[in-house]
Amino acid sequence: MKRRTLLAGAALALIKTAAGQVVQTLAPGDPTKTPGPPPSTLGTRSGFEQPRLIASDTSSRTPLQSLMGIITPSDLHFQRHHGGVPTIDPFKYELLIHGMVERPTVFTLRDLRRFPSVSRICFLECSGNFRSGKPNMTAQEICGLTSQAEWTGVLLSTLLREVGVHPSATWFLAEGSDAAVMTRSIPLHKGWDDAMIAYGQNGEALRPEQGYPARLLLPGWEGNTNVKWIRRIEVSDGPFMTREETAKYTYAIGGGKFRQFSFEMDARSIITFPSYPQQIDKGWVEIQGLAWSGRGRIGRVEVSTDAGRQWAPAQLHGPVLPKAHTRFSYLWQWDGRPTEIMCRATDETGYRQPTLSGLAAARGGHTDGYHLNPITAWEIRRDGQVFFKPEKWK
Amino acid sequence: MKRRTLLAGAALALIKTAAGQVVQTLAPGDPTKTPGPPPSTLGTRSGFEQPRLIASDTSSRTPLQSLMGIITPSDLHFQRHHGGVPTIDPFKYELLIHGMVERPTVFTLRDLRRFPSVSRICFLECSGNFRSGKPNMTAQEICGLTSQAEWTGVLLSTLLREVGVHPSATWFLAEGSDAAVMTRSIPLHKGWDDAMIAYGQNGEALRPEQGYPARLLLPGWEGNTNVKWIRRIEVSDGPFMTREETAKYTYAIGGGKFRQFSFEMDARSIITFPSYPQQIDKGWVEIQGLAWSGRGRIGRVEVSTDAGRQWAPAQLHGPVLPKAHTRFSYLWQWDGRPTEIMCRATDETGYRQPTLSGLAAARGGHTDGYHLNPITAWEIRRDGQVFFKPEKWK
Repeated sequence: MKRRTLLAGAALALIKTAAGQVVQTLAPGDPTKTPGPPPSTLGTRSGFEQPRLIASDTSSRTPLQSLMGIITPSDLHFQRHHGGVPTIDPFKYELLIHGMVERPTVFTLRDLRRFPSVSRICFLECSGNFRSGKPNMTAQEICGLTSQAEWTGVLLSTLLREVGVHPSATWFLAEGSDAAVMTRSIPLHKGWDDAMIAYGQNGEALRPEQGYPARLLLPGWEGNTNVKWIRRIEVSDGPFMTREETAKYTYAIGGGKFRQFSFEMDARSIITFPSYPQQIDKGWVEIQGLAWSGRGRIGRVEVSTDAGRQWAPAQLHGPVLPKAHTRFSYLWQWDGRPTEIMCRATDETGYRQPTLSGLAAARGGHTDGYHLNPITAWEIRRDGQVFFKPEKWK
Repeated sequence: MKRRTLLAGAALALIKTAAGQVVQTLAPGDPTKTPGPPPSTLGTRSGFEQPRLIASDTSSRTPLQSLMGIITPSDLHFQRHHGGVPTIDPFKYELLIHGMVERPTVFTLRDLRRFPSVSRICFLECSGNFRSGKPNMTAQEICGLTSQAEWTGVLLSTLLREVGVHPSATWFLAEGSDAAVMTRSIPLHKGWDDAMIAYGQNGEALRPEQGYPARLLLPGWEGNTNVKWIRRIEVSDGPFMTREETAKYTYAIGGGKFRQFSFEMDARSIITFPSYPQQIDKGWVEIQGLAWSGRGRIGRVEVSTDAGRQWAPAQLHGPVLPKAHTRFSYLWQWDGRPTEIMCRATDETGYRQPTLSGLAAARGGHTDGYHLNPITAWEIRRDGQVFFKPEKWK
C-alpha cells in the first residue's frame, strides 16, 4: 500500500454542509507539501463544517443532530427573544434587588463578580420545545429549543443574604432590560436553592443572545423564567401575575382548567443518530442521543428498535450531572428491514417520559400548549433513510 | 430610588478590552425602548468582550486570566503548530493503521464515526508551557499553553482490536499530515488505556487548529504527542526515534543526562484572579485559579497569602475530573498590606507541585527545558495592583 496513493486528493472541493449550503473549499492535494497558515489569535471552524441555528423572528434552534458530547457551542445555543437582543454596556449595567428586603441594593457587574462564584453544567430548554407534523423534520426542528452550557455566576442566595430578605417573603419578580421588559414571578425557594445570576457561559462572558452581561439562571426550570439581561429583582409575598404568566406560558389541561405556573422541565430524550436526514448502512449502528430532566439526574434511558414493543437499557455516558443533557448510546445491529427506533428517559425521581397520547390523556385531550416532552420515533426505511414518525394520537 | 435614573446610560462607549484594544460600541441609553435585532443563525460575542489568544509564529496562548469555569472556548484553545495549519478535506481523509497488526486497515472519517464513541473533558498542555522573567506578565504569557475541551472520538483500543495487534508489539508511531509530518512514538499501553482518535471538540467537529478532521488524544500526556491531523499509526516493538524525540522534547536533568520520553504532565496550578494586570480592593477577595494533573484527579490545592509561610486548603469546584483543569477558590480578606499570594496543587498520586528551585535541584540545576510546572507567585502592592513575582533560584 503506497502512502502516495493513499493521500492524493482533489484540489477543489464543492461541499454540501449539514445545513444544506454549498461551499467551496480549497484543500491541497497533499497538505504535507505546503506549510499552512501560522497560529491565529482566534480559532475558526473548518470550511467543511458550518453548523447553524435555524432562526425565526422570535427563536433559533440548536442543531442537535450535528452535536457530540454534552456541551453546546455558545454560538449554537438556542435563542428565544421577546424583544430582540439588547446591547447592554457592562460598565453601566446595574441589578437592583429591592421589595421585601432589609437593604435595597444596586449591584454593578463588578460587584456581582466580587462575590464567590460557582460554575455548573446544565441545560436550558424553552417550555414550547415541541413541533411535529411531517416526516422530513430534523431533531433541530422537533426539539432544538434546548441547549447546554457551563454557566458561571453568583448564587442568588448569596445576594439574598446580602440584602436581607423578610421572613414572610415567598416570591420574587425577575425583570429583564430588553425591549419586552420580560418579567416573570419566581417562587423564592428557588432563589435559596440553586438559582444563579450568571455572567459566564462556556468559560467566557455570556453571549449577548444569552443575556449579556448577566441573566437569571434557574437550573431545570422552563427557559423563559431564566430572565436574560436581568436588571431588577423585587422580593414579595406573592406572584405578580405578569403578562408572560397570564396571556402566555399557561396551558389547557382539560375540564376548562389551565396550568399557570409549571416551572420544572420534565424528563425527555431524543435519538440524534440516526435521525432525519441521515442514512444508515446495514450492520452495527451506534444509536446515540441526549436525555435530560429538570428534576435531577437522568436515571435510565431505554431504546426500542421494534417500534416500541421491546425496550432495552441504553448506556449513559458520564458525567451524568443533575439537570443536564446526558448522552446515551445503544449498539444495534440493523438487519436491513424497515423498522422504527425510539427512546424514553426516566429521571432519578422515577418520572418516565410519556407518549404523546399519554400526555394528551393526562391533559383532557389538549396538546397545543407547553411542556410537551413526548417520545420521539424515527422510521428506518429499507434503504437506510431515516424519517421522523410523528405519533398520531387522535 | 428611580428606575429611570438607575438605567440611564451613555450612547457611545469607548471600551478598552482585556486584550488592550480600544473598541467603540453603541449601547442605547435605555435598551428597553428600542427593539434589538432578532434571533440569529449563529451567536456572537459582545463588542465589549473580545478575548484573544496571543500568537507567535509557532504557538498561540489561551487567556487563562479571562476564563471562568473549566471549559476553554474552542476558538481560544491554545495552538502549537510545527508546519502551520493544514486544510484537510474530510471526504478524502484517511487514517492508516499498519505495522505489527493482523489486518492493516485504512479508516475514512465515516468509518471512524461508525465505531462506538466516547466523550471526555480533559486538558491539553504543551510540555514547553512555562515563561518567566519580568513582573508584567499575565497568566496567559506565563502558562497559556494549556486549555481544556470536551473531546469526542473513538477509543484507540477499539481500532487496535479491529486491526488485531501482534502480542509482541510495544509502541506505535503517530504521524500527522501537516507540512512538518509531525511524528511521535507512543508506548502501546497508552493505546490500550485511554487514547482516542478525536473528531469532536466542545460539541462539534474539531477545529482546524486542533487537528480537523481527526487527531490523536492522549489524556494527560504532553501536547505534542497528541498528534493532530493524524493520518498514520504504525504499530511496532520499539520507539522510532523521530526528530521530535531526539532533537526536540528532551531535556537536561544534570550529570550530562537527558530525559527523552517524558509523557505525563505533572500536577500544576496557577491563580488566575487576582493576577497581572488586575487590581484588587481591600476586603474580601475570592482568589481563583486552575489546577490540573496528567496523572489523574487533583487531590488538593493549597493557597498561601503570606508569601509561602502558611498554606490553607482551597475549595475545589466540581466536577473534579481526572486529567482535567479543576477550578479552585479561596476566600481571602485583604488588609491592604503588600504581600505575595501563590498556590500549589497535589494530585491523587500524592505528587505535589514544586518550587522552581526544587525543580532545578532535581535536575542538576537545569531549568531550560520542558515540563516546568513551578509554583507561580503574584505580588500584591499597596495600591492593589498585582504583578508576577518570578522565583529567583540561582
